[in-house]
Amino acid sequence: MRLSARNILNGRVVALTKGATTTHVKIEIVDGMVLTASITNEAAEDLGLAVGMAASAIVKASDVIVGVEE
Amino acid sequence: MRLSARNILNGRVVALTKGATTTHVKIEIVDGMVLTASITNEAAEDLGLAVGMAASAIVKASDVIVGVEE
Amino acid sequence: MRLSARNILNGRVVALTKGATTTHVKIEIVDGMVLTASITNEAAEDLGLAVGMAASAIVKASDVIVGVEE
Amino acid sequence: MRLSARNILNGRVVALTKGATTTHVKIEIVDGMVLTASITNEAAEDLGLAVGMAASAIVKASDVIVGVEE
Amino acid sequence: MRLSARNILNGRVVALTKGATTTHVKIEIVDGMVLTASITNEAAEDLGLAVGMAASAIVKASDVIVGVEE
Amino acid sequence: MRLSARNILNGRVVALTKGATTTHVKIEIVDGMVLTASITNEAAEDLGLAVGMAASAIVKASDVIVGVEE
Repeated sequence: MRLSARNILNGRVVALTKGATTTHVKIEIVDGMVLTASITNEAAEDLGLAVGMAASAIVKASDVIVGVEE
Repeated sequence: MRLSARNILNGRVVALTKGATTTHVKIEIVDGMVLTASITNEAAEDLGLAVGMAASAIVKASDVIVGVEE
Repeated sequence: MRLSARNILNGRVVALTKGATTTHVKIEIVDGMVLTASITNEAAEDLGLAVGMAASAIVKASDVIVGVEE
Repeated sequence: MRLSARNILNGRVVALTKGATTTHVKIEIVDGMVLTASITNEAAEDLGLAVGMAASAIVKASDVIVGVEE
Repeated sequence: MRLSARNILNGRVVALTKGATTTHVKIEIVDGMVLTASITNEAAEDLGLAVGMAASAIVKASDVIVGVEE
Repeated sequence: MRLSARNILNGRVVALTKGATTTHVKIEIVDGMVLTASITNEAAEDLGLAVGMAASAIVKASDVIVGVEE
């Protein structure tokens, strides 16, 4: 499926932390650049996420804030 | 200001597209990896955004979807 | 690509409204039930969206508010 | 209260999963079409959510991603 | 309708800026504290928004970032 | 860092509820007006959040829904 989301960053799962209902997934997209996603446990299980697996971090442009150093 | 947002990707503005109320900002975070942010024109002006400027793309973990190739 | 997003509603594009930077897409998922998505013009063009096309509305569980009638 | 959110889908609660801080609510909007919302436990309690109750899934247009099959 | 959204701030519309598809609404919630909402033009028209009208700014807890001064 | 986010409300932490992966932070921005943020435990620890601390609630304009009483 192709997506309207403008930001699709391909990487690899480097950590998974499972809570009672929510899983935090860390995806390394380039050496030392790691993104964190907060998803449902159900989603983590459906996707069969595991450390070492290829995965993408997908973000809609309207969910990106821009910051500038003062 | 330090932020709870888990994803702060530092880069440089490579394109700005200004509409009637909304500006699209493209930030290159590593060579060839460009993120798009959709922000208000007011914000783009307040930050004084311009092509070539250093800027960060900031995303809350709960706004990241994980994708896996089939 | 399989997605962590829990809500993927398949339907058909019934209307497209293009602004200066933003396109509103209406997707009918069942008879008379129409969802609206606000996406970038760039995304609408990349996907080649047109009225009548099959398309899905995708929503992360953390972006759904629950309402109850009083 | 009337809302700016463009997507208000009326249905019935078919499942509730309560974690330490977060509750997942499944709302069936038409036969076999179930949406998942991730909300705070506090909200689930304030609304008195229970399986079988009428409830709506509310989504802002800017939180809808469009997908197209390849 | 009662909502799961934890943050409902009541105020008054103090400015409306209408673009091609998007309207920016400024709502003053206490003296000098003004919030900005970016909504569809369609929503602004449906709600009949006008300067001086009572209106609420509604935000889901998962859309709030916490910041701390350094 | 200056942010594109239009809504930065300064206040004080009045409550913290820590779950398995998610922390709920309540920030009082004016007397009796309290906002709730849902963030990762990791973020709460990184920021060293504690009751009584000064903190800001930050919200992007595109995450604000407008409501009008009927």
